[in-house]
Amino acid sequence: MDFSAQRWALGIEYDGDGFSGWQLQDGPRTVQEELERALASVAGQPVRVSVAGRTDAGVHAVCQVAHFDSPVVRPEIAWVRGSNRFLPRDVSVRWARAVPQDFHARFSATGRSYRYLILNRQERPALGAKRVTWVPRTLDHLAMQEAANLLLGTHDFTAFRAAGCQAKNPVRSLRCLEIERRGDLLIATVEANAFLHHMVRNLMGTLLFVGRGERPADWVAEVLASRDRRLAGTTAPADGLYFLRAAYPDQYGLPDCGDAFFGA
Amino acid sequence: MDFSAQRWALGIEYDGDGFSGWQLQDGPRTVQEELERALASVAGQPVRVSVAGRTDAGVHAVCQVAHFDSPVVRPEIAWVRGSNRFLPRDVSVRWARAVPQDFHARFSATGRSYRYLILNRQERPALGAKRVTWVPRTLDHLAMQEAANLLLGTHDFTAFRAAGCQAKNPVRSLRCLEIERRGDLLIATVEANAFLHHMVRNLMGTLLFVGRGERPADWVAEVLASRDRRLAGTTAPADGLYFLRAAYPDQYGLPDCGDAFFGA
Repeated sequence: MDFSAQRWALGIEYDGDGFSGWQLQDGPRTVQEELERALASVAGQPVRVSVAGRTDAGVHAVCQVAHFDSPVVRPEIAWVRGSNRFLPRDVSVRWARAVPQDFHARFSATGRSYRYLILNRQERPALGAKRVTWVPRTLDHLAMQEAANLLLGTHDFTAFRAAGCQAKNPVRSLRCLEIERRGDLLIATVEANAFLHHMVRNLMGTLLFVGRGERPADWVAEVLASRDRRLAGTTAPADGLYFLRAAYPDQYGLPDCGDAFFGA
Repeated sequence: MDFSAQRWALGIEYDGDGFSGWQLQDGPRTVQEELERALASVAGQPVRVSVAGRTDAGVHAVCQVAHFDSPVVRPEIAWVRGSNRFLPRDVSVRWARAVPQDFHARFSATGRSYRYLILNRQERPALGAKRVTWVPRTLDHLAMQEAANLLLGTHDFTAFRAAGCQAKNPVRSLRCLEIERRGDLLIATVEANAFLHHMVRNLMGTLLFVGRGERPADWVAEVLASRDRRLAGTTAPADGLYFLRAAYPDQYGLPDCGDAFFGA
């Protein structure tokens, strides 16, 4: 009998509102805890998962990616439907794929994307109130895009990292930062090889200064060059932030959940 | 001193998930109850509202319209911002306008539109789980549109009304019923002069029979002609249903909330 474990990759959707983030903690409810509990029910034994992007409290995911090992033989569909039977309504597994042992949800990822949604109107939202960041003052999204363009490329993003960020290297490659307006909704799409802690929310907080007309667009280049967190804008709220997808080398053949999701 | 009351119209957004519908009831939480309580706090005296479309438990609204009378003199902005300060997070007032005494949210409305959102994918939703109706089986939206076209016009819609519907006249004019697919999302937009009780959900339940391939498109014409509720499909869930807007004669100058909203 061969007890060698099979490695599985999973695509996971969650509504971050009811969670204290991804990572397992003593006490507060986390996505990892719910997912590991559901997978253990399917496997009939404990399961431990690793994730592409640990998200903070309140941050949502359209298609988070995690992997786990299990010696238990189950078809793809059993991991998906079985897990969804045991998971609460604010988490769902979208796909499962068998992957080789060298796959790692975090270390194999070649890129991550996030989306940030801003409801830009005078009256506060009622529909989806905790799934969008509300900004009543009219934002100049073209100035925000102009500022965003100055951040693209490979830079030391120290000015945009949280005080407690544990990454050894503050250099990241920002590949995309697009701001689109659809009526009252501003949709920002951000892609990088990886992100520092709070980097997306600090970038958005800084761009909001420009959008509100409190700083000119080229101010963000100064902030970036300063490597001084105190110069950047305040951390934007978690409400409007979505982990959109993680990219992997083609050899792993993982599905793309797409970027169309219910919400934007 | 003149105590004649001013009549006000309001545009209201709400997330139906936490409500037992619009209408005031003994016990369960309703939108009307929350709105009247907030308006009373702004006015400093009781306020009673009338609404364009009483929605059932779980049904959402992008821009519901209501009116009320108050002798208390307040600017538009006080009714909007004041109410939003007192309202819970799942209801918000989008606008307020002074209207003449002959305006009535229900009787002056010349049309109502609803939107119905269906998430059509195998895995259940986690994001916005109670704001969309989940249908795992692939739907033929073109067949649904073909069937929908047979329902347009002025007809006796008895086959699509709830058993408890109190309307004296079952004839309604269905002006629009469009089914659009955007990736996994099916978006139905329905417009009529007025609707019978459960009419939108019964229409959708019937179109879902066609979408799943259980009935041909022209079956819905038979159902309509039969005036027999037992022949139509089951009532579709409230989760995916949104009151979109009410139309009024131009003379009242009411704002249009648009049909773009966070969610679709």
